Amino acid sequence: MSSAETSPSTTARPMLGRPAIGRGEKVRTAVLAATLAELAETGYAALTVDGVAQRAGVHKTTVYRRWKDRDALIVDALAGQIAADIPIPDTGSVDQDLRLLARGLAAWLTGPAGSAVLAALLSDAVRVPAMAEARARIFDDRLRRAEPVVRRAVERGELPPGTDPAEVIKNLAAPLYFRVLITNEPVDAATADRAATAVLTAARHHGLG
Amino acid sequence: MSSAETSPSTTARPMLGRPAIGRGEKVRTAVLAATLAELAETGYAALTVDGVAQRAGVHKTTVYRRWKDRDALIVDALAGQIAADIPIPDTGSVDQDLRLLARGLAAWLTGPAGSAVLAALLSDAVRVPAMAEARARIFDDRLRRAEPVVRRAVERGELPPGTDPAEVIKNLAAPLYFRVLITNEPVDAATADRAATAVLTAARHHGLG
Repeated sequence: MSSAETSPSTTARPMLGRPAIGRGEKVRTAVLAATLAELAETGYAALTVDGVAQRAGVHKTTVYRRWKDRDALIVDALAGQIAADIPIPDTGSVDQDLRLLARGLAAWLTGPAGSAVLAALLSDAVRVPAMAEARARIFDDRLRRAEPVVRRAVERGELPPGTDPAEVIKNLAAPLYFRVLITNEPVDAATADRAATAVLTAARHHGLG
Repeated sequence: MSSAETSPSTTARPMLGRPAIGRGEKVRTAVLAATLAELAETGYAALTVDGVAQRAGVHKTTVYRRWKDRDALIVDALAGQIAADIPIPDTGSVDQDLRLLARGLAAWLTGPAGSAVLAALLSDAVRVPAMAEARARIFDDRLRRAEPVVRRAVERGELPPGTDPAEVIKNLAAPLYFRVLITNEPVDAATADRAATAVLTAARHHGLG
């Protein structure tokens, strides 16, 4: 999120094009951070590759060399941030795993990163179909990464065989998003634990098959 | 919720102030419909009382006579529409009631009215605190109206005594909003029924206490 550390200059300098070990990853990180900052500030519709490049202190062509277009850049920035911010637990207990997953999501949703991502994803989402697609793709990626938590629980015999992993993860995440997006209620560890309890109770009694 | 009755005027024009049976309600309906149309078209931030008045074919002072400000008008328009569109069932069976409630919400969320309301409520929500407040107030109203469904079920002995009505309603609505707002999945009667089953299963086994 902190573009301050990674964006030393606003105009392009020839030196920046020179390949060097570690340099590529540094540019990539700077561009992705600049993308998130631009998204938070200007929103999806107004975001330009020019604006991102300027903020990251790189030339526009440097961005286009790595990302085919604006949308690819945005999806990459958002998906990467979420993956880094919400780890997928594997404690051997489904109670513990779902609780940790919900707590991680709660902390992310209410922190600066989550707020910025949600602002970017939703502010223009209804009017900009590409944004809705990007959002769906990002959360699809999230779901796929979280589903093993449920599959492992079924394998261990903690949840019934017919349990639908996607349904469990969606029903775990939904109440937290609902509070942040709709009812404006605080979302904390207790909220996360309640969501985990509700979804576990439903799953254990064949309510999420 | 209806500020119309409680905030009579800020300015007054003699002719329009003339009371007439039916006329007042007609103006009110036209102004609220115009508000929803403006919201869908221009969004919350750009909506003006001027624009609403023009679209409704009334003078601006007519609007201010009934609603104290722009926000009161918007909240009234949105809350009224949702209340009209999603009836609260009372069939005597909690299965049936929750299923009907979820189906009504699903139909609304995916219909033109719900889409317009969501677009209005969310597009500017993250940047405009007043919009977030309006949204919270509207859904608070919805929750209060739906909670008796759960209380009646507890009284009939269909759900455990400790069941939290607000939690049940929120956990019923959350997966539907989540699909519309985040994963972009279709939301239909089957989705609604799955949400009702999950929440009922959790509630029956003390997962929503």
